[in-house]
Amino acid sequence: MKSRNAELQSAARMPLVEKFNEVRRYSVRLAEPLSAEDCGAQSMPDASPVKWHLAHTTWFFETFILEKLEPGFRPFQPAFRMLFNSYYNGVGEKHVRAHRGLLTRPSLSEVLDYRRDVDARISRLLAQSDRSASDEICRLVTLGLHHEQQHQELLLTDVKHLFWMNPLKPAMLDTAFPGAGEEMPLRWKAFDAGIAEIGARGEGFCFDNETPRHRRFLEAFEVASRLVTNAEYLRFMEEGGYQDPSLWLSEGWDWLCANRLTHPLYWQAPANDGQPWREFSLYGMQELDLHRPVTHLSFFEADAYARWADARLPTEAEWEHAAEFSRGSRDTGASPFHPSGMLDDGDELAQMFGSCWQWTSSSYAAYPGYAPAAGAIGEYNGKFMVNQYVLRGSSCATPPSHSRTSYRNFFPSNARWQFSGIRLARS
Amino acid sequence: MKSRNAELQSAARMPLVEKFNEVRRYSVRLAEPLSAEDCGAQSMPDASPVKWHLAHTTWFFETFILEKLEPGFRPFQPAFRMLFNSYYNGVGEKHVRAHRGLLTRPSLSEVLDYRRDVDARISRLLAQSDRSASDEICRLVTLGLHHEQQHQELLLTDVKHLFWMNPLKPAMLDTAFPGAGEEMPLRWKAFDAGIAEIGARGEGFCFDNETPRHRRFLEAFEVASRLVTNAEYLRFMEEGGYQDPSLWLSEGWDWLCANRLTHPLYWQAPANDGQPWREFSLYGMQELDLHRPVTHLSFFEADAYARWADARLPTEAEWEHAAEFSRGSRDTGASPFHPSGMLDDGDELAQMFGSCWQWTSSSYAAYPGYAPAAGAIGEYNGKFMVNQYVLRGSSCATPPSHSRTSYRNFFPSNARWQFSGIRLARS
Amino acid sequence: MKSRNAELQSAARMPLVEKFNEVRRYSVRLAEPLSAEDCGAQSMPDASPVKWHLAHTTWFFETFILEKLEPGFRPFQPAFRMLFNSYYNGVGEKHVRAHRGLLTRPSLSEVLDYRRDVDARISRLLAQSDRSASDEICRLVTLGLHHEQQHQELLLTDVKHLFWMNPLKPAMLDTAFPGAGEEMPLRWKAFDAGIAEIGARGEGFCFDNETPRHRRFLEAFEVASRLVTNAEYLRFMEEGGYQDPSLWLSEGWDWLCANRLTHPLYWQAPANDGQPWREFSLYGMQELDLHRPVTHLSFFEADAYARWADARLPTEAEWEHAAEFSRGSRDTGASPFHPSGMLDDGDELAQMFGSCWQWTSSSYAAYPGYAPAAGAIGEYNGKFMVNQYVLRGSSCATPPSHSRTSYRNFFPSNARWQFSGIRLARS
Amino acid sequence: MKSRNAELQSAARMPLVEKFNEVRRYSVRLAEPLSAEDCGAQSMPDASPVKWHLAHTTWFFETFILEKLEPGFRPFQPAFRMLFNSYYNGVGEKHVRAHRGLLTRPSLSEVLDYRRDVDARISRLLAQSDRSASDEICRLVTLGLHHEQQHQELLLTDVKHLFWMNPLKPAMLDTAFPGAGEEMPLRWKAFDAGIAEIGARGEGFCFDNETPRHRRFLEAFEVASRLVTNAEYLRFMEEGGYQDPSLWLSEGWDWLCANRLTHPLYWQAPANDGQPWREFSLYGMQELDLHRPVTHLSFFEADAYARWADARLPTEAEWEHAAEFSRGSRDTGASPFHPSGMLDDGDELAQMFGSCWQWTSSSYAAYPGYAPAAGAIGEYNGKFMVNQYVLRGSSCATPPSHSRTSYRNFFPSNARWQFSGIRLARS
Repeated sequence: MKSRNAELQSAARMPLVEKFNEVRRYSVRLAEPLSAEDCGAQSMPDASPVKWHLAHTTWFFETFILEKLEPGFRPFQPAFRMLFNSYYNGVGEKHVRAHRGLLTRPSLSEVLDYRRDVDARISRLLAQSDRSASDEICRLVTLGLHHEQQHQELLLTDVKHLFWMNPLKPAMLDTAFPGAGEEMPLRWKAFDAGIAEIGARGEGFCFDNETPRHRRFLEAFEVASRLVTNAEYLRFMEEGGYQDPSLWLSEGWDWLCANRLTHPLYWQAPANDGQPWREFSLYGMQELDLHRPVTHLSFFEADAYARWADARLPTEAEWEHAAEFSRGSRDTGASPFHPSGMLDDGDELAQMFGSCWQWTSSSYAAYPGYAPAAGAIGEYNGKFMVNQYVLRGSSCATPPSHSRTSYRNFFPSNARWQFSGIRLARS
Repeated sequence: MKSRNAELQSAARMPLVEKFNEVRRYSVRLAEPLSAEDCGAQSMPDASPVKWHLAHTTWFFETFILEKLEPGFRPFQPAFRMLFNSYYNGVGEKHVRAHRGLLTRPSLSEVLDYRRDVDARISRLLAQSDRSASDEICRLVTLGLHHEQQHQELLLTDVKHLFWMNPLKPAMLDTAFPGAGEEMPLRWKAFDAGIAEIGARGEGFCFDNETPRHRRFLEAFEVASRLVTNAEYLRFMEEGGYQDPSLWLSEGWDWLCANRLTHPLYWQAPANDGQPWREFSLYGMQELDLHRPVTHLSFFEADAYARWADARLPTEAEWEHAAEFSRGSRDTGASPFHPSGMLDDGDELAQMFGSCWQWTSSSYAAYPGYAPAAGAIGEYNGKFMVNQYVLRGSSCATPPSHSRTSYRNFFPSNARWQFSGIRLARS
Repeated sequence: MKSRNAELQSAARMPLVEKFNEVRRYSVRLAEPLSAEDCGAQSMPDASPVKWHLAHTTWFFETFILEKLEPGFRPFQPAFRMLFNSYYNGVGEKHVRAHRGLLTRPSLSEVLDYRRDVDARISRLLAQSDRSASDEICRLVTLGLHHEQQHQELLLTDVKHLFWMNPLKPAMLDTAFPGAGEEMPLRWKAFDAGIAEIGARGEGFCFDNETPRHRRFLEAFEVASRLVTNAEYLRFMEEGGYQDPSLWLSEGWDWLCANRLTHPLYWQAPANDGQPWREFSLYGMQELDLHRPVTHLSFFEADAYARWADARLPTEAEWEHAAEFSRGSRDTGASPFHPSGMLDDGDELAQMFGSCWQWTSSSYAAYPGYAPAAGAIGEYNGKFMVNQYVLRGSSCATPPSHSRTSYRNFFPSNARWQFSGIRLARS
Repeated sequence: MKSRNAELQSAARMPLVEKFNEVRRYSVRLAEPLSAEDCGAQSMPDASPVKWHLAHTTWFFETFILEKLEPGFRPFQPAFRMLFNSYYNGVGEKHVRAHRGLLTRPSLSEVLDYRRDVDARISRLLAQSDRSASDEICRLVTLGLHHEQQHQELLLTDVKHLFWMNPLKPAMLDTAFPGAGEEMPLRWKAFDAGIAEIGARGEGFCFDNETPRHRRFLEAFEVASRLVTNAEYLRFMEEGGYQDPSLWLSEGWDWLCANRLTHPLYWQAPANDGQPWREFSLYGMQELDLHRPVTHLSFFEADAYARWADARLPTEAEWEHAAEFSRGSRDTGASPFHPSGMLDDGDELAQMFGSCWQWTSSSYAAYPGYAPAAGAIGEYNGKFMVNQYVLRGSSCATPPSHSRTSYRNFFPSNARWQFSGIRLARS
């Protein structure tokens, strides 16, 4: 007996090949403005080189599909099994995460060969496999594509961090900086108390961490109509937000003091009075646009801002419940690669998707009844469910067709290099 | 207008003085088996010297009550305001936490003088204060006593750690080791899905983090009838529990590898085959009693054990909901200072209180509508609501009258020096 | 055949018992102003608790003399062999250095019992031992006494550091602060080029690192007539000494920046203009006396000051060669416990002994032909001959009869808690 | 008045241009087997990327010559002044050393353009400059070339380390592995006590740290006729050398334990009994050749081996004095890039140059009368004269014409990635 999910995919076999080609090409296209040198460097242990992202996403298809299901499987290069294993203990040895930037071999060109080889073999498998195998293949290829889309966003945030670390502050993109933001008052949308359902509905793909759909009791709450802007965050800074411990979680205050932080990541203070703040973007250094959403904040900063603003962060259940009432498009088309300040006119809840991920107050935990998949692939999500906080929505760097209401992103409370912003809530 | 809480306390003014004297005396009594040298040392930054606990709990009364409400207040020693401030930024400067063991001055004897002085002044205040002030005084004294009771338990776990670090492995107590455990099968108690109320009911004292009482939707679940025993945990170890990454949260596995852990804190492996494991207790080194509950586990270990046992940790809401149906006494009388394996016969849920704190899967977070108190005293709980996990119940080191169903204890996921154990749950 | 050294000692057996009693009593006398609590704490891994010093020096006599030479030897407490072993791998296991402050047991009172027991047994051994054994006994007892004298100085500098770490800034001594310094011009004493002999002459006791006496070729050089004063060092500070990297060794500059240093250890900047600097002493906080020698400097600071002053530090050979021409007393009588600014009138080279140890530019290395003793006792000096710098002379904390021209003290280049100062040299 | 040095160089102006071109070309030639990706990575803070070496050596000419002496100087790229400043505080800001591997921009190709531009301008300056300026130019160009030669060796040892960190263990060179070693007995050459002169004689170029030539008194000593071999070092290992603390300096033993070391860097233990040890080389993994000199040892290992062998390391004065009697060529022609075991037949002291640098027991310190140059260029050597040990001779990676008897190389006592070996001495 097949699952409805597999049936849907099975029915859509031909589109899956096309989807496969499209997603795979998009990764390579993202790397096109970069040199082989740019693709090799790792700016911090949390980030990975572009070349590594290109290889690891390929490894995922090779290891979890070809190795298992391709007749007469032979690895492209046996050493890659270890070199490009990210964290799957079930697969075996892994290369040290912090040393990914030292892998000058294989070259970018060899990695691109690796991609082409695996692409051809997966396409062949999708075309030839008999009916019974193909359900599993479709399921795994679909998972591999969503996995690759996650890395597409990481590739961008990792390059942004790498270029920021370079005193030359190079721009990744030489196209026009996306249009300016517009001012708009912050309104509150209210929701009544009651039982809400959250989690994936089973229509289309989802990660295991979005299941099972289940009930939550929510007390009455309100959610802000848009994200917090740079102008608002500047006021928090100017009124001493980074100097007042009473606004901060204790661990956040210690973190802030130890790192002497006074503003969001990628901001550069004005050299002289009267000059504007600047911020680093994938388009290079830019004047800070006051009406765009503030981004590159840690959970600690988002939480402190909310306290200062007499509000709080939403829980992830509140966010998801609210999102189901939002008319905003989940799929925002081509990524602008920088948070746009433009607002979906007329929507009560703007910027839910496609601008900045939104920190919630929820720690990343299993839904009631959650069970990870068997085997190494079950290491995808469940084992990270500790000491991380959930972000909801999607960002300006999320690839097309990778957003949904039930999507759960998660990062540690001090992570700042993602496009992470603030949507306020209150009781 | 007075709160019902204040009224209750106000009505019970005389008993509060007695309660005050009793709680304050209990701290001193706990330190009696210790020398001044024992009371001065700090075994790790997370722990504090006994002398510091004795002084800081006194500082709490002096700073939050006398300084504010005593007519003509003069500090016992002005420097103590900074020396014994734990983490209240609102009070001002604090002595460096990791350096508490270097405060050989003031001496233990001066700290005991400090206690006597503040005790006398608080007693006087309680006796003399006029009606309107006394509500606030009663409220604050009550808070101070519960604060002191928390430190009474910490005092014991901190001494245990200190003595463990001493190769002589001294015993704190020379009384008889509490009686042996008895074997008992583990049964499951089932609860139906539905809306549960959790949080303090407003009867008697509670900390602010237990409020407000609110609704949660719980899916159907089962809870184990007793805690996991040393025998069961040994089987987990013998079957490779500490060697199999698939049982562990990713961060837990890294922590375990970095610290080369293979068993709970305070356990000592047998020197030869056939000999028993031993464990360190406040009564010195003892043979490991297989039927007692396993204790001194981190969240990571509790979680890994649960996964190995095809179960999970309860959420704190599940725990509290179950506890409301338990007949077990919340107040377990005199503390035995080591988890007893004795079971409350006939109770469906044994060892909820008085044996080991029970890790839940819930990260420590604010209840919906939670608001900390204004001023420095509001730093008591709220600012720690990040990257910690909730433990429920109480332990063999919890002082009498300091247990309740809604009580929320919390520690980081790698903390092991508390009397922390495992109660399993399943869906 | 006996060495001349042993003969001298053998001839002087009765005085050795007296010397033994005198030195052993002096350690206890130093600790008299301290409480048991004061004696237990360890302020940093480099320092040791007073109680540990009292026990370890006793351990030295027990392990290297009684264990080997006492008929029917039984240890005072078998665990002490490991607990109070400092760094002798040849003796076996050692307690972790950084955890010495956690040994609240044994108590100070037990350690004093230990001292009395070992004292009695050593005295008996000295009295009873037959002629042939007694040469070795005398040699080892003499070594043990010089070892104990080294710890007497460390005990004082370790207490000073401990009390400095206490915000109460307690005074160890309540006697009068030693008399003020007098101003005196700095003169230079010249020495011609030629072959000099350095190293112990074999008259009286020396450590093995002072041997063998050997020849060095010295180019012509000059040495300053006195130590650098606080006034001079203040000028270095005021003229930007701590802000100019060109004055510093590269590693010193990195150390200074990482630790944000702007003045010597134990100095406290004036709260307001016009007020004096203050410095912490064993007599508590005191106004900085401009004419006393500057002390508590690292090698890096001493070297930077010398460069600023268009001079350099002497080599240890230059220092020793010069010292042989100095009329200053090697033995300066009762220790004042703070560097005195008083000058030995009429001496061309004042303050060679009894004020501050003097950093030399010489790294601590073996003399040509140096051979450590066989066995564990050979670990005394030789194994530390790397990455340390030699200090010469003696200090205000050096015990009576523990100074000599050939004495080699040594510390890492960033150590500041000894009474270390500067004598300039130039070519 | 001109120095004799300048005169010599002035007379040889045309050859200097040729020398300049030859040395500059050699750097580029060394990098030819490497991709741009290989040239960008930094394997540890102590190492630098090849691209950085190529840029920094160019920066040296631009900053210290063109900026000062080129009429109408305009920088190639103003940001390079900071980006490629290694440690010259006198020049101004520096890029963070540990982040050199993050400079994916400028590209390798831009750096090669930078080299060509500066090469042309220096050549022009050498050709055009008038007589009086040209002495300084010649002096500085000559210094720049020797500086570049130092980086040529570092480039090789840094690539070796980078490739070792890659699990693929790539070979840098695809030419034949240099010929095998031959067995030869170790003999001792004796030297009488007396005054020796050491330091540069003033014939040809030397670094400032080799001056002034001065007298040292040397006691009689002997020096080994060749370096310690892999076979000899293996015996040390097999006889427990890495397990016996009595052979090690205390700090060395701590370092060894903390890093769990049991063999030299780049050695790989046999997978099975009977198989040979292997070692990583610039030619990839190779079977360990027992007769070649052991290399990639720290000072600690060299010192421990010497102690085990009942010998010691020579002082640098002993080494230099001995070297003046050696007939071995200082200039060993083309570098083999791996220590050859071939011996200069008939020479009493073989392998003084061109095989492995030889650790001495001398800490790196100023010679009597040493004075660094004025200005930023004076930061070249003097400021590193602390906590480092001198190595003498030269290695298989030292470029042609960069060896001399008075040359002083220096590294910290735990550095292992240079071609460092052992020549024994004894008294």
